[in-house]
Amino acid sequence: METQNNNIDLYLNTLGAKAQAAKAALQSLDEERKNQALKRAAEALVRERDRLLCANGKDYEKARKNGMAEGLLDRLKLTPERIEAMAEGLIQIAGLPDPVGEVTERFERPNGLHIEKVRVPMGVVGIIYEARPNVTADAFGLCFKTGNVVILKGGRDAFYSNLAVTEVIREALTKEDIPADAVLLIENNDRAVTTAFMKLKEYVDVLIPRGGAGLIRSVVENSTIPVIETGTGNCHIFIDETADMEKAIPIVINAKTQRIGVCNACESLLVHGKIADRILPLLGKALSERKVEIRGDETVLEQIPEAHAATEEDYGKEYLDLILSVKTVSSVEEAIAHINKYNTGHSDAILTEDQSHARKFLREVDSACVYVNASTRFTDGFEFGFGAEIGISTQKLHARGPMGLKELTSYKYQITGDGQVRP
Amino acid sequence: METQNNNIDLYLNTLGAKAQAAKAALQSLDEERKNQALKRAAEALVRERDRLLCANGKDYEKARKNGMAEGLLDRLKLTPERIEAMAEGLIQIAGLPDPVGEVTERFERPNGLHIEKVRVPMGVVGIIYEARPNVTADAFGLCFKTGNVVILKGGRDAFYSNLAVTEVIREALTKEDIPADAVLLIENNDRAVTTAFMKLKEYVDVLIPRGGAGLIRSVVENSTIPVIETGTGNCHIFIDETADMEKAIPIVINAKTQRIGVCNACESLLVHGKIADRILPLLGKALSERKVEIRGDETVLEQIPEAHAATEEDYGKEYLDLILSVKTVSSVEEAIAHINKYNTGHSDAILTEDQSHARKFLREVDSACVYVNASTRFTDGFEFGFGAEIGISTQKLHARGPMGLKELTSYKYQITGDGQVRP
Repeated sequence: METQNNNIDLYLNTLGAKAQAAKAALQSLDEERKNQALKRAAEALVRERDRLLCANGKDYEKARKNGMAEGLLDRLKLTPERIEAMAEGLIQIAGLPDPVGEVTERFERPNGLHIEKVRVPMGVVGIIYEARPNVTADAFGLCFKTGNVVILKGGRDAFYSNLAVTEVIREALTKEDIPADAVLLIENNDRAVTTAFMKLKEYVDVLIPRGGAGLIRSVVENSTIPVIETGTGNCHIFIDETADMEKAIPIVINAKTQRIGVCNACESLLVHGKIADRILPLLGKALSERKVEIRGDETVLEQIPEAHAATEEDYGKEYLDLILSVKTVSSVEEAIAHINKYNTGHSDAILTEDQSHARKFLREVDSACVYVNASTRFTDGFEFGFGAEIGISTQKLHARGPMGLKELTSYKYQITGDGQVRP
Repeated sequence: METQNNNIDLYLNTLGAKAQAAKAALQSLDEERKNQALKRAAEALVRERDRLLCANGKDYEKARKNGMAEGLLDRLKLTPERIEAMAEGLIQIAGLPDPVGEVTERFERPNGLHIEKVRVPMGVVGIIYEARPNVTADAFGLCFKTGNVVILKGGRDAFYSNLAVTEVIREALTKEDIPADAVLLIENNDRAVTTAFMKLKEYVDVLIPRGGAGLIRSVVENSTIPVIETGTGNCHIFIDETADMEKAIPIVINAKTQRIGVCNACESLLVHGKIADRILPLLGKALSERKVEIRGDETVLEQIPEAHAATEEDYGKEYLDLILSVKTVSSVEEAIAHINKYNTGHSDAILTEDQSHARKFLREVDSACVYVNASTRFTDGFEFGFGAEIGISTQKLHARGPMGLKELTSYKYQITGDGQVRP
């Protein structure tokens, strides 16, 4: 056991030292060279398509034999089109403005000190994710563009795929005379290595987990590195008494069914009691047609014959499935209180034509993204116009909601004087 | 043991629930009411001076009997003047602009969605600190002004003082019809309670430790709540070959001796080899006159007869004492590499008349505050003009360097549509 721990420490310390050694060279690259390298990496992924497909085939066959569910198998699978999309992602990142070096504040003190607040890379970013090989290229691209070294720990089911993607990118960097260690993959799938990685504080500046609730919880509980929590979304829509039915039903259908396994999908619906008898039958019909199971309170059961009774537990659940909890409330205040009790701080919407209710909801609901008359599905870096997304933060420190390139940067103060001392 | 753990859980969950219950009322206060309450709390502290002095006397006597060192006893002690200063601090905070509600970005998407990024309170802030009772009023003031509930865990040596300060503030809030639970003090000094508090993630949005390296380390290792790391500063000054001696010596003396026990004091000096024989004797004399012990390399020992030999360990040390490590280097590159190896990411300075060296140093030294031709002692919320300071962050997530009111806020996106759904 002790030998094993020593081996793990040695392995991770070596990796951390490599990351630190690559840091200065990476930070000295100008925007043009970074964009050039991203394009070369994109070309290499397309060129080395067969190598990637072959590696992915190994993962896929193993996963299939181990009985991986169909949906997960699909996420794991690489195709020529998906490789094209990965490459396209890198080219898009190359086209985005580089936030590093931006002076966000500039001020002069009465003693003549000139202070500038400047955006800088975080340094070394750790990313722990599950079985989607496209995250490998994506996370590299975002971190590289912002001058960060990235250490990746992908899911073991995608191991050969991740390794191949990383190798191809590293080769492309080497050809550009950029340290390959700008992207490092943890090649040991032992769980103890992942846990030890979460404590590699000396080398890693921030850790971002991307995956299900279990992974996020494990990172939050074990990490000594600052973490950006992402992901879980128990998103609500509240249909107020003045809601426009023409807008309301399409929004609910969109938020619940446009894509069900995602964190910004609607999981819980609140309906103002005054319009329950008008809207619930329509909603019941529209949702049932799309095979959505409804779990509701007594009023809901009265109005929607297909509905099942909801338990207290239902209101706190992120189903990620064709299930929706529905509850009637008697006021916007009750809706807000319910949401603030059960939500995960992700995305919540009010559908209303009452401006004062809209303002109250926007102000008082404690979520990263609060909507009036729109689908919660818009909580997304691309939909927000960031051009990229490293995840959606559900914590309040550093970043909240969709995170793009800026959220992968920190800042420093640069202070210039001419001999000032503190009196 | 289990009963004890249950009791701790019950105690902290009750406290957390109180904080959550106070949150909405606190967030609904406008700036005027917050400022009014801060002024009333300041008046109450002055009015209840005798009560505070009496409580502090209890702490002081106990600490003195337990053999507390003179310096710490002085930090613990309240006097009428120090109570006035505490009150004055709250009045100053009342005078600062309220960052909450500020719209920092506003944009419209092609689909017509209108998005605003708005500054909001963190929610509930936890602060763990050591034996300075003035932090109690200060932390309350900063958190209250930014609409945050604060849960305080002060050092056990200042227990009665902290309790009295908190009680006086809570009474003042109650008179203003504001929930007293806007400020909560953990009244159990058991270490297990403090550790459990660090895991009160369900109720606390951010945890800020203020104190020595041991406290910070314990919080980083144990907390599941996002932490803002503050404090330790192994700050460097590099005297480049073109440095102006007239400025250099006063800056070094100021940074080392103006106040020795603080995180922005200079702990390590680098001198360009080319000017070693000119500047070291002058520095040696100036530092010795101020009783600063010098620990240096061979060149330093040759030039300064009073100097002792430095060990490798000296270069990594935050002395917080009248000791300075001194090393000669042969280039700005060597200086930067040395600093990035040994510093704590706090504050580092170059003294130079060479603009290209200055720019290189500003860009490449990885610290919260990087200086040209000024003392590191300026890393401070007041010196930066923030009007207040909750601490100095040495991490890169969320806040870096001096943290004022803005750094106690998060943001949310408020999105307004007219029926948009995601295609």
